[in-house]
Amino acid sequence: MSELRKDPVTRRWVIVATERAKRPQQLQSINPVTPPGTPQRDPKCPFCEGNEGMTPPETAAYRHAGTPKDAPGWWLRVIPNKFSALDPNIVFERIGEGIYDMATGFGVHEVIVESPYHNHTWGTATDKEFEELFWAYRDRLINLMNNPKLKYVLIFKNYGPEAGASQVHPHSQLIGLPVVPKRVIEEQEASEDYYRYKERCPMCDIIRQEKADGRRLIVETEYFAAVAPFASYHPFQIMIMPKGHQPFFERLEKGMMMDLARLFRQVFWALAQVLGDPPFNCVLHTTPPASVGDDRCSHWHFEVVPRLTKVAGFEWGSGFYINPTTPEACAESLRAKIQEGMDDEE
Amino acid sequence: MSELRKDPVTRRWVIVATERAKRPQQLQSINPVTPPGTPQRDPKCPFCEGNEGMTPPETAAYRHAGTPKDAPGWWLRVIPNKFSALDPNIVFERIGEGIYDMATGFGVHEVIVESPYHNHTWGTATDKEFEELFWAYRDRLINLMNNPKLKYVLIFKNYGPEAGASQVHPHSQLIGLPVVPKRVIEEQEASEDYYRYKERCPMCDIIRQEKADGRRLIVETEYFAAVAPFASYHPFQIMIMPKGHQPFFERLEKGMMMDLARLFRQVFWALAQVLGDPPFNCVLHTTPPASVGDDRCSHWHFEVVPRLTKVAGFEWGSGFYINPTTPEACAESLRAKIQEGMDDEE
Repeated sequence: MSELRKDPVTRRWVIVATERAKRPQQLQSINPVTPPGTPQRDPKCPFCEGNEGMTPPETAAYRHAGTPKDAPGWWLRVIPNKFSALDPNIVFERIGEGIYDMATGFGVHEVIVESPYHNHTWGTATDKEFEELFWAYRDRLINLMNNPKLKYVLIFKNYGPEAGASQVHPHSQLIGLPVVPKRVIEEQEASEDYYRYKERCPMCDIIRQEKADGRRLIVETEYFAAVAPFASYHPFQIMIMPKGHQPFFERLEKGMMMDLARLFRQVFWALAQVLGDPPFNCVLHTTPPASVGDDRCSHWHFEVVPRLTKVAGFEWGSGFYINPTTPEACAESLRAKIQEGMDDEE
Repeated sequence: MSELRKDPVTRRWVIVATERAKRPQQLQSINPVTPPGTPQRDPKCPFCEGNEGMTPPETAAYRHAGTPKDAPGWWLRVIPNKFSALDPNIVFERIGEGIYDMATGFGVHEVIVESPYHNHTWGTATDKEFEELFWAYRDRLINLMNNPKLKYVLIFKNYGPEAGASQVHPHSQLIGLPVVPKRVIEEQEASEDYYRYKERCPMCDIIRQEKADGRRLIVETEYFAAVAPFASYHPFQIMIMPKGHQPFFERLEKGMMMDLARLFRQVFWALAQVLGDPPFNCVLHTTPPASVGDDRCSHWHFEVVPRLTKVAGFEWGSGFYINPTTPEACAESLRAKIQEGMDDEE
């Protein structure tokens, strides 16, 4: 009928349908997020090359030598979010209001425009495009972590309106917060509990078991692995992490960045092929500055969640999830597609 | 710009946009979930009167004297979910798989068909319809809590496809679980922490402050209050709870049930009027059997979340929410609409 599975890190239970499970193909997106025929330039898009005047002045950019700031000539551009949820120019202050706690809305909210081209997607991106994006993630993390008032920096990507994106043009986002978010604290605390008991990092144990088992392994490269988590909350949920113990994304060496780009290209190409360019969310969890956690048990990773099913009252009320597919079936279909792609490359 | 607010029970932070806040009217549903013209009977709907043969045999029903089981003559009907996520007829067993924990999919999944009429909604329901529904909630809770293998019973309603409902016909659902869900444990633990510190129930403190303040109070009746939570995650989030300390929904007296029905009728009528029959989720949190928690600090309540905005990568990755409206503005618009309705009644 179905199984209950427990996430070893968040300790959340998931109901995984097995017998009546939907086949991965039944979950295909009806509408691709970036349909064929989407133009390479859109005159009304604020993120397109040539439209730099439609955004706030750039915070950083990777551009061809000699091209001026806020003008064409870039291949990646970081800008403040025009509709920022937070303001970097106010003082962070905690305030009590009777029994309630509140604080001023201090923080940073940036957009990383991933490409000058309106119609590029992660499903068709090259190794080089991914590598440049990871350098931008790294540069922004290092830059913002120098600000002691920011306790955590979350990098994430929303792709498609179903995933909360309001722009088609390829972009990631970053929010720097004056408090460490609950989800990150939970992961940290659970990992520390595990470490106290086993003296091993839980993520390292997960990778060891997934490599030995193989059923949920999607692809591995020299340094990284992509896995469908044992207690996946959602169909085609994917975790991407270094195979060796690494707490800090921002310390990756150049060779590893290139290797990670290769893995991302394979995973997102396969995801687009199998599910028809689906909407998804992707988030990076890296270890916050040393004071907050114990880095012996904190292992950076990306989490990817395609938005194929709706979260409803049961999930909201219980924190429990119902997943209509097995991670084993999802991993199998992505693994087969990646193998097919590699055969074609040869 | 915006404020950070912390939920006193779940201790989750929320970014509440204040200055640029969307006006409640901007959040109106484009399409009503049950548009005018929806027929009172649909020959293909398994929940309509006359179609009892399309569902599994009924578990319970409120029906006119002398009408037989699984035939017309009922005004409320409880049936097993045909596409149940869990199976009541298997043995609950915990299983280890390397570092992972899992269990057999034991549990109960039922549908409460709220009315014989296909096109009834909470936005137009009468006091009597709500009261009968609450008696059904109570009866099922008492019945299922007699099963010691069920550690928690969650009652919830998904309204509209955006909220995860696959049927138009008015219905609630119930899932009985062999483990207490994380969200319920979190609430319980946070309330116990608060109690240890203050020797008061946090929910009782919330009601006291909200009544004194008034800005987030939507409506109150003799025994109940509806409030827009201080740290609302979502626009038009609503909490409905008894004003006096009550741990157990299933112990409500008849007069209170009638009073609660009156409050629900007002709140959901106003919600449908202000937002245009929006999709929503509603969940009931009542205290699990005594062994699990301390009932001096556990206060039952309903949580209502209209589905007007998308949850995206930031929320998934951080557990933080961004709410583009203030609960004060949402409460004000519902309060005004309810007042208008009461003036018309007189």
